[in-house]
Amino acid sequence: MSVTPAPETTTETSTAAAGYAPTDRTVPSRYRDRAHYDHETVHSILDAAYLCHLGFIRDGAPVVLPTLFGRVGQTLYVHGSTGSRPLLAAGKADPGLPVCLTVTHLDGLVLARSAFHHSLNYRSVVVHGTAYEVTDPEERRIALDALVDQVVPGRSADSRPANAKELAATAVIRLDLNEVSAKVRTGGPGDDPQDVALPYWTGVIPVAPAYGTPVPAADLAPGIPVPDYITAL
Amino acid sequence: MSVTPAPETTTETSTAAAGYAPTDRTVPSRYRDRAHYDHETVHSILDAAYLCHLGFIRDGAPVVLPTLFGRVGQTLYVHGSTGSRPLLAAGKADPGLPVCLTVTHLDGLVLARSAFHHSLNYRSVVVHGTAYEVTDPEERRIALDALVDQVVPGRSADSRPANAKELAATAVIRLDLNEVSAKVRTGGPGDDPQDVALPYWTGVIPVAPAYGTPVPAADLAPGIPVPDYITAL
Repeated sequence: MSVTPAPETTTETSTAAAGYAPTDRTVPSRYRDRAHYDHETVHSILDAAYLCHLGFIRDGAPVVLPTLFGRVGQTLYVHGSTGSRPLLAAGKADPGLPVCLTVTHLDGLVLARSAFHHSLNYRSVVVHGTAYEVTDPEERRIALDALVDQVVPGRSADSRPANAKELAATAVIRLDLNEVSAKVRTGGPGDDPQDVALPYWTGVIPVAPAYGTPVPAADLAPGIPVPDYITAL
Repeated sequence: MSVTPAPETTTETSTAAAGYAPTDRTVPSRYRDRAHYDHETVHSILDAAYLCHLGFIRDGAPVVLPTLFGRVGQTLYVHGSTGSRPLLAAGKADPGLPVCLTVTHLDGLVLARSAFHHSLNYRSVVVHGTAYEVTDPEERRIALDALVDQVVPGRSADSRPANAKELAATAVIRLDLNEVSAKVRTGGPGDDPQDVALPYWTGVIPVAPAYGTPVPAADLAPGIPVPDYITAL
């Protein structure tokens, strides 16, 4: 693959009403009220995540791998070793590699009285599209900063940027947010009316990520404090 | 698809030394020391998860969807509406639907001095294989119990089992654990020796799921206590 399309935008362009156009692939066959297409919902779910699950086809079979990602406006970036399989595939594919990138947050365990209505509260985003290798040096720099800032916002400015050797070892692919939807389940169990009298406890157990106390590296020099952007987590 | 292979086992058969045989697809091209194939590591990562990311191919493109799953011995089960797309595809496919099922736990944010060495601590399992629709009533019952017990262990015995109408609306697919590997990253950042003197804080921010106080359903009858299996979370 030799052509890397230029990014349409690298800044936020959403307004309150802006959204992604639904397609056959992004309209669910069930629970359509759980689907959202507005930029705010989609982007906030993406920005709250540390990793995505990237799906692609290798030798005719699906592959799903967890990996870091970063968002810049309406574009997602994934990186990896130039020797990694999906990155190699994207680089070789022309005109790009069909992928599906999915991000999911678990928000609660939903315990209904009936086994049938057990569920999870969650927020997810599913992106369908084609990934292209990024070769432009400036776009690669923006993408790599976004990948570090996805781990901790503000961190890219407080670490050593990649040097030439590291850049040469790193492949970056881009996936434009175009065919994308969010799905959100909230609230309590959906038991049938005839089950309300059953003697089982029913409700939701909230789940959320919790941050532990930062563990300094063994060789951290004395006197370097934990930065504010970490304390703010 | 009309043939549902019988489960090879529905009980735990692993011993300390038992494991899954590595294949071309389950040996990583990099960081081979992070790969594990023993039953104990693979099963414990699966059992600690509430959802998986299921990848399959639809109309020639990859699709990755978050969904509940359950484990019984060396078999995973996924369920859904009989009208759901992947379930329909598995039912129609002969001899089954190629899938990749991935489970990932985030354990820490790894902040290196260099942008290049930023990473995540995680535990993941990737299963390659073929999913088959389950039609045997007894295996379907075992699978549905396992799906509920994956949400909260012990819950299937303390809820109303599915009735005939619910069973008719539910499709179950199975995926045998055969071509499967775990990948685990632990520990601190992997900065290069020449970066140790740089003035950036470096270390790991631990991340783990935290459970909130159970929220009873609005129509929960008075006097039904929170069960021990929930308090034990």
